[in-house]
Amino acid sequence: MRRAVGLLGGGVIGGGWAARFLLQGFDVRLYDPDPEAERKMGEMLANARRALTSLSAVPLPPEGTVTMVATPAEAARGVELVQESAPERVELKQALLAEVCAAAAPEVLIASSTSGLRPTLLAEGMANPGRFLVAHPFNPVYLLPLVELCAGERTAPAAMERARALYGSLGMAPLVVRKEIDGFVADRMLEALWREALWLVNDGIASVEEVDDAIRLGAGLRWASMGTFLTYRIAGGEAGMRHFMAQFGPALQWPWTRLTDVPELTDELLDTIVAQSDEQAGGRSARELEQVRDDCLVSVLQALRARDIGAGAVLARHERALAAAEPARVIDAGDDLSQQLSLHTARVEAGWVDYNGHAHESRYLQVFGDASDALFTYLGIDAASLAGGSYFTVESHLSHLREALLDDRLSVTTQILGVDPRRLHVFHSLWREGDGALLATAEQLFVHVDTVARRAAPAAPDVLARVERIKAAHDALPRPQRAGRSIGIPGA
Amino acid sequence: MRRAVGLLGGGVIGGGWAARFLLQGFDVRLYDPDPEAERKMGEMLANARRALTSLSAVPLPPEGTVTMVATPAEAARGVELVQESAPERVELKQALLAEVCAAAAPEVLIASSTSGLRPTLLAEGMANPGRFLVAHPFNPVYLLPLVELCAGERTAPAAMERARALYGSLGMAPLVVRKEIDGFVADRMLEALWREALWLVNDGIASVEEVDDAIRLGAGLRWASMGTFLTYRIAGGEAGMRHFMAQFGPALQWPWTRLTDVPELTDELLDTIVAQSDEQAGGRSARELEQVRDDCLVSVLQALRARDIGAGAVLARHERALAAAEPARVIDAGDDLSQQLSLHTARVEAGWVDYNGHAHESRYLQVFGDASDALFTYLGIDAASLAGGSYFTVESHLSHLREALLDDRLSVTTQILGVDPRRLHVFHSLWREGDGALLATAEQLFVHVDTVARRAAPAAPDVLARVERIKAAHDALPRPQRAGRSIGIPGA
Repeated sequence: MRRAVGLLGGGVIGGGWAARFLLQGFDVRLYDPDPEAERKMGEMLANARRALTSLSAVPLPPEGTVTMVATPAEAARGVELVQESAPERVELKQALLAEVCAAAAPEVLIASSTSGLRPTLLAEGMANPGRFLVAHPFNPVYLLPLVELCAGERTAPAAMERARALYGSLGMAPLVVRKEIDGFVADRMLEALWREALWLVNDGIASVEEVDDAIRLGAGLRWASMGTFLTYRIAGGEAGMRHFMAQFGPALQWPWTRLTDVPELTDELLDTIVAQSDEQAGGRSARELEQVRDDCLVSVLQALRARDIGAGAVLARHERALAAAEPARVIDAGDDLSQQLSLHTARVEAGWVDYNGHAHESRYLQVFGDASDALFTYLGIDAASLAGGSYFTVESHLSHLREALLDDRLSVTTQILGVDPRRLHVFHSLWREGDGALLATAEQLFVHVDTVARRAAPAAPDVLARVERIKAAHDALPRPQRAGRSIGIPGA
Repeated sequence: MRRAVGLLGGGVIGGGWAARFLLQGFDVRLYDPDPEAERKMGEMLANARRALTSLSAVPLPPEGTVTMVATPAEAARGVELVQESAPERVELKQALLAEVCAAAAPEVLIASSTSGLRPTLLAEGMANPGRFLVAHPFNPVYLLPLVELCAGERTAPAAMERARALYGSLGMAPLVVRKEIDGFVADRMLEALWREALWLVNDGIASVEEVDDAIRLGAGLRWASMGTFLTYRIAGGEAGMRHFMAQFGPALQWPWTRLTDVPELTDELLDTIVAQSDEQAGGRSARELEQVRDDCLVSVLQALRARDIGAGAVLARHERALAAAEPARVIDAGDDLSQQLSLHTARVEAGWVDYNGHAHESRYLQVFGDASDALFTYLGIDAASLAGGSYFTVESHLSHLREALLDDRLSVTTQILGVDPRRLHVFHSLWREGDGALLATAEQLFVHVDTVARRAAPAAPDVLARVERIKAAHDALPRPQRAGRSIGIPGA
């Protein structure tokens, strides 16, 4: 049965929730009195779809469907969770939550997206608050993995466990707040930083662009991977955390922040911020800026995924879970082998692009190498154990026909040209999805290697039999035009 | 003439400065009374070299040399800048700066790395404070581009301009603080966040690892590319910044931070933090954690470089400047061309090794691609501007003869086999230094491309003349045995 959730509110946060749930395969029932809600949510979903399809190395589950509903009670029908994302007004949230609580079946979880209001306060009017908690996400909800879970005084531990599993299955990293507190964990720190940022503009120390640069050209780069404590531990040098605290602890007492004051949002300060913000945006619409932000987040997440750290580790874990749900393709007796094999897809990532503005030539060979690995898996070679040996590349002939550009989606088709007990001869073609352009080809010769003895050795009989079967079918295909080429300049 | 700087202090910040200056081609005169200073600096330099060589798409300038000196005055001899990075004690810094100021020639700039002390205060004992300013960097100094420049009351505007140019030439992004203030811009915000982080641990709301996750799984990912104002503008949705301020302004008045309090660093709090930090470090040494941090920063910077935003835009700009300034090896009338060219060396890095325990096949092509770039530079093609067009690879034939293993030092030799106005045919050989083993060969065909029109076009006459000259000499060499190969399994 398909999983479903109800959402109350489809603004920046509620719409972000809708996108995350839908793209992870949940159906969504959305209540929002704003007549524009469906349009806004659709636009955000389009942005989210664009970002997530470029982020993930594994295919997403089939997308869920949206049903717009007329009342909060209808949002709760047939769902496992209702997520409230109304404006931050206590009475409004309390009323909505009480209404939903009265209408929802007793096993339905109820969560509020509040940035900082305590769950015990929000639960005041609820008849059955044991299944209620705060689940506070971060914008854009469809890309950032953090969700803070905070229990109120009457929240049942079982509800917290169910919530942790549910948000985890969305690719999020639930952080359970140990004690109920206003602002939870992240927003207490964000708020402290933001208040100081407002003072800097108010006092004419820096413009909004300069404040942003002060973050993103320095500490922001560290915060993306390590947060604050691990970063400072390293700054303590060989002597570690105690040394760092001893060295920089006293500075905490120095007057480096405005501390007690809250800047008054006068018309003058507001005008300054709005004017500087407009300048910084340089005429780009919110939608365009969202795409810039999402592109950056995708690239940063991929960078961290390669390092298996922080949000990148969360992403890798979720992808492994998605991939495990869909086992690797191994040859099956029923497979139609009359066409070239299609075993590998990829996307041109930010790190692949060189100073010429296209994917570096070595990245083509990387994709072909991954396609070869997919072929070996398909042949029943276990890449992880390599117990039965492995194929090593001894020769590659690449032809670059067209440029591969950032975000291009790629697919590889593979034809087997020759085989003997120790050698395998294949021809890969690299295609761009969308316009179907042929970007490059790679003819490759592999030698089978005993990976323990580190020398050539015959492949296992079952592997050889599979290769022979594919080759027999592929012998009926036309020989690729670029196979067997040698390099030279005719007449030169 | 080589550029040189003097450094006072070689700790985490001073050592980081040394690494940045040396790797950007400056000579360094280092004063540090710590007998371990030279060793510590050497270790940091090794880490920095490792990070920067994997970060940069263009070769760094030839590394500068370090001279350890016995007094602050000697550090100031023959340099254009003295950078003070002593501990944050006012009297100590004042004394050092006064001493250096008295000894240094009048045109020498003097800067303090202080995290937050006002330059007017630090300059109190200086005889000639017009050339003194604060230049506050961020750890690791050799990777993070931000440097805050703050003038004191007596700082000359010309000194600020010279400092801006000097730090800019190091690949940094100088941020000029508009008014003198304690803590400048970034540390005021960092300090506000850090104080709140300490409270969260002190109050048992979260562990240090959870605090770090609250940052790096959420807002930290946004801070890396956009900072805070631009991020919030987007969160305001279509209505932009004014809407965001109206919606979230009131929350500033809510009790979400500890504001007035500064947590006391009791033994108990310190013990808690140190124990949790040790757990988080999982037995990794400071040096190992530095490498993890640097690897992450390198990947994040590369991700942002591909998006041409924030620190990535700074990096891209600096690489263009380096490539433009680089007195790279360009062919000279006196060069002996009777042997194959030897223009590129490399080392097998950790990230290159695949599950088979050797360098991934794509990394061989990466090295050959870098060797081709070195050849193009040698031919007088300006890789940065690409104004006169560039050679694009259209065909490559690689032969893998032996495995390249972690830390192997590699060198490439290059023979020119053919040329016409639009095409270039070369043969690279990849050798392992030490045992001189031939690891791989690459025969490559390039087409000359007009990089604006994005189509094939003849190379410039002077470039062609250089290629012809090399080819004429190389025609006397034996043709490489593997040139002209095509792939196949004889008899299969």
